[in-house]
Amino acid sequence: MAGGEFDLIRRHFTRPAPPGVLGVGDDCALLPPQAAATAVSTDLLVEGRHFFPDVDPRALGHKSLAVNLSDLAAMGAQPTAFVLGLALPRIDDAWLEAFAQGLYALADAHGCPLVGGDTTRGGAGATISVTVFGAVPEALALRRSGARPGDDIWVSGELGAADLALRLLLDEPGLPVADRAAALAATRRALEWPEPRVALGLALRGVASAAIDISDGLLQDLGHILAASNCGARVCADDLPAAAAVAALPPDWRRRCTLGGGDVYELCFTAPADARPRVAEASARAGVPVARVGAVEAGTGLRVTDASGAPLRSLPRAGYDHFA
Amino acid sequence: MAGGEFDLIRRHFTRPAPPGVLGVGDDCALLPPQAAATAVSTDLLVEGRHFFPDVDPRALGHKSLAVNLSDLAAMGAQPTAFVLGLALPRIDDAWLEAFAQGLYALADAHGCPLVGGDTTRGGAGATISVTVFGAVPEALALRRSGARPGDDIWVSGELGAADLALRLLLDEPGLPVADRAAALAATRRALEWPEPRVALGLALRGVASAAIDISDGLLQDLGHILAASNCGARVCADDLPAAAAVAALPPDWRRRCTLGGGDVYELCFTAPADARPRVAEASARAGVPVARVGAVEAGTGLRVTDASGAPLRSLPRAGYDHFA
Repeated sequence: MAGGEFDLIRRHFTRPAPPGVLGVGDDCALLPPQAAATAVSTDLLVEGRHFFPDVDPRALGHKSLAVNLSDLAAMGAQPTAFVLGLALPRIDDAWLEAFAQGLYALADAHGCPLVGGDTTRGGAGATISVTVFGAVPEALALRRSGARPGDDIWVSGELGAADLALRLLLDEPGLPVADRAAALAATRRALEWPEPRVALGLALRGVASAAIDISDGLLQDLGHILAASNCGARVCADDLPAAAAVAALPPDWRRRCTLGGGDVYELCFTAPADARPRVAEASARAGVPVARVGAVEAGTGLRVTDASGAPLRSLPRAGYDHFA
Repeated sequence: MAGGEFDLIRRHFTRPAPPGVLGVGDDCALLPPQAAATAVSTDLLVEGRHFFPDVDPRALGHKSLAVNLSDLAAMGAQPTAFVLGLALPRIDDAWLEAFAQGLYALADAHGCPLVGGDTTRGGAGATISVTVFGAVPEALALRRSGARPGDDIWVSGELGAADLALRLLLDEPGLPVADRAAALAATRRALEWPEPRVALGLALRGVASAAIDISDGLLQDLGHILAASNCGARVCADDLPAAAAVAALPPDWRRRCTLGGGDVYELCFTAPADARPRVAEASARAGVPVARVGAVEAGTGLRVTDASGAPLRSLPRAGYDHFA
């Protein structure tokens, strides 16, 4: 790193480390010993693939940390700290200031300090790497592998808004939306400022049997739970909680957004049917609505039906491929 | 992430997690509680800035982890695990296989398993992010801030070879090297396959008063120790241990490579003069030679002299700016 880049870090990303932590400014950060297990998640965000070059840098700073906090939420872990890697083609002070603001605001809201990083000029577009740490007693960690036949399937919040916003920003032809500007205004925040469901993940410790965050689309992410748990499932597409702008779409488009749409960062989790009161309590405690959308079944495969119980003929693409 | 990318990860980067660790395949990795502090370091490697597009991918896999292990070494930490972020413009199976081989070989040599990651297509060139974890009792961690006036200044191994190799690969004009091919053959390994000095870092616990790894050049990195310790120092440029191909250069070029050359990944550390026998013992235990190159002084500033004790008039650039 060159002198100018040290200054860059110092100006925007150095704050005093919290008590017990040796932060930015040595070869490593030192995190104090903890009695719980350490949950670790890492994500790369690449310009042109995970975000548009002209995205609001405050939103980008927020989202870079949010997607990682969402992984902690899906494990029922309490965020403790994170490190940041930032490769930038050029150094733009105003951009960095805004990025840091968005990042720190979310970090502060979750008591999750930045403790180290690496910043470099280079690359054709920006690349952001965040690695986040959390604490969770190992026996209480929410895993993908704990779903059992008979369990309910739940999702938090609303689905589809981020996907619709992305389609609108890409000006997708054929999208049956009369007022595109109004629809974008209603959905863009879901895409750019996702709220990681950390409080819900913590409240679901000892309640949920399995959990995952919806980053690649419900079908694909629920599929990971089912694969890890050796189960199948049934989901009613018309029971899925859809954002208002998505609910207003014709059924096939609505299902495409809710079943296949990624970048959601809501939780999908399973819980035994007799835990419904405890799920409701966890939802109330976290202040996040949850909806029951299906059931885990013996065997394999994911059966998606409409409200009448008839199987859907064609499903949205199974994998969410970001901007590709 | 799309289906094809999941396959990519599965094929090259999924190995069973070690006992006590929940590895690749859930939202987070879970590291077991440890009584020591957790040392954390993160580095980004960007194509065209930190490595050439045509670099041997095995070497790149090695170096991606090596530069992070070197940070643990500089803290006296024992490596425990790492996570990997990989953004690739295209998916090349042979390249990935070789990259994974180089990465895993070094990870295995240090008992440091890969426990999680994120792989994505995107970007104009490859970007590699590694975050590594280590264990060190907090009281024994080697910090930058512990140097005191009167302490000796030491460096491990030899300096300058990586810098000379880079100059040769860039075909730098004016370089006074008669047989460039032979010089490159003698120095290239230092640039592409650096050996992190983990064993030396562990052996220096309780012996060294401060330590850093030389990534940006001795002048700059020693400068970080002095700044953190509020001290000055005197270094004799002609006492610096130089790789043979570097020692053969005229004095001004030799000093440029040893004082300013980055990408070294040797340790620079300080220790009280009465600890010399224990430094020698640590060096022998780790099997890594060390050389005494100067002394910490009261005040500020770094004075560099030649063998006669006369100050050097012009010093190499203070910051190592990679390929810029």
